[in-house]
Amino acid sequence: MDNRERILEAARELFAAEGLTVPMREVARRAEVGPATLYRHFPTKEILVTEAFTDQMRTCHVVVDEGLADPDPWRGLCSVLEKLCELHSRDRGFTAAFVSAFPKAVDFTAGRDYTLRAIAELAGRAKDTGELRADFVFDDLILVLMANNGIQAASPAAQVAASRRFAALVIQSFRAAPEQPPLPPVARLALVVPGKTL
Amino acid sequence: MDNRERILEAARELFAAEGLTVPMREVARRAEVGPATLYRHFPTKEILVTEAFTDQMRTCHVVVDEGLADPDPWRGLCSVLEKLCELHSRDRGFTAAFVSAFPKAVDFTAGRDYTLRAIAELAGRAKDTGELRADFVFDDLILVLMANNGIQAASPAAQVAASRRFAALVIQSFRAAPEQPPLPPVARLALVVPGKTL
Repeated sequence: MDNRERILEAARELFAAEGLTVPMREVARRAEVGPATLYRHFPTKEILVTEAFTDQMRTCHVVVDEGLADPDPWRGLCSVLEKLCELHSRDRGFTAAFVSAFPKAVDFTAGRDYTLRAIAELAGRAKDTGELRADFVFDDLILVLMANNGIQAASPAAQVAASRRFAALVIQSFRAAPEQPPLPPVARLALVVPGKTL
Repeated sequence: MDNRERILEAARELFAAEGLTVPMREVARRAEVGPATLYRHFPTKEILVTEAFTDQMRTCHVVVDEGLADPDPWRGLCSVLEKLCELHSRDRGFTAAFVSAFPKAVDFTAGRDYTLRAIAELAGRAKDTGELRADFVFDDLILVLMANNGIQAASPAAQVAASRRFAALVIQSFRAAPEQPPLPPVARLALVVPGKTL
């Protein structure tokens, strides 16, 4: 494995375990490279985050594009929810990055914005067909991804199983039904601003 | 504030921020007492956890007793879910303790077992009236508490608001409805065994 790959792997592990606030020098130490090598490959932490999660972001885009292509928007939305919960349950570092606010515009945020806009579009269509509850709001999606991230199981397989069950429950809760009591007010979930070390 | 209260406050803060694995010496340092003082008041971490969360555990018992006393078990269960999510969202340290396995029997686990048994009883009654979905299992409750713990908002007030909306969604997902698709298999959520430092 070359230095670049070693750094990316160390970054993914550390982001998963400790979130994005982990210092760059810690990444260098875990990857067993000097700081100069780290900064030559990844001049900023934003760039490191973007590169570390390129595959996951690409998967996100495939998932939402497939959802949008489904002629049944509710089915498309359910599929997106299931797949995103699973993707995030496999990689907590990706979730940490996904729910973080970045001080500067980076490719990662552009990729995330594409994903979120696509889900918003899909949710709008699913409301139009009357299958998604009318009081669903976008923050509910962030709420679900954060909640999905709180689930802790004893093994990666149990983690994914727990996340699947959770996604199925979430889908039930989003489905419009007769005589549904209104939801309590929306909580604005500001994206998490990682520590100053970003 | 006397030493005992200072230690309990430091413990609650550290458990909330870092979970139960935080070393005892760290608690002593934060409380600005020597290790001897800490151990004189709280000979083991289990005792410290139990004492730190006495009030929260008492609230849990009041909440489940009220739920059981409700003549409508589904309404009782919904109220328990709402109140537990809110209680846990106000104190992450308590959630960390609640979902932890303790190597030795302690008063904290006895209090938790009382809470969990009461909810199981209430869930059984709510299934009998047909309002709770038949495939609800006990691990779903643990799943919900863990998920509730993953929600991060910018302020304590936003945190509680987010948790309220989450609880309302969860209640929707637990309600029995006609033509409900079956849930994916149950994920066994082993209680988290805290690090060896416990």
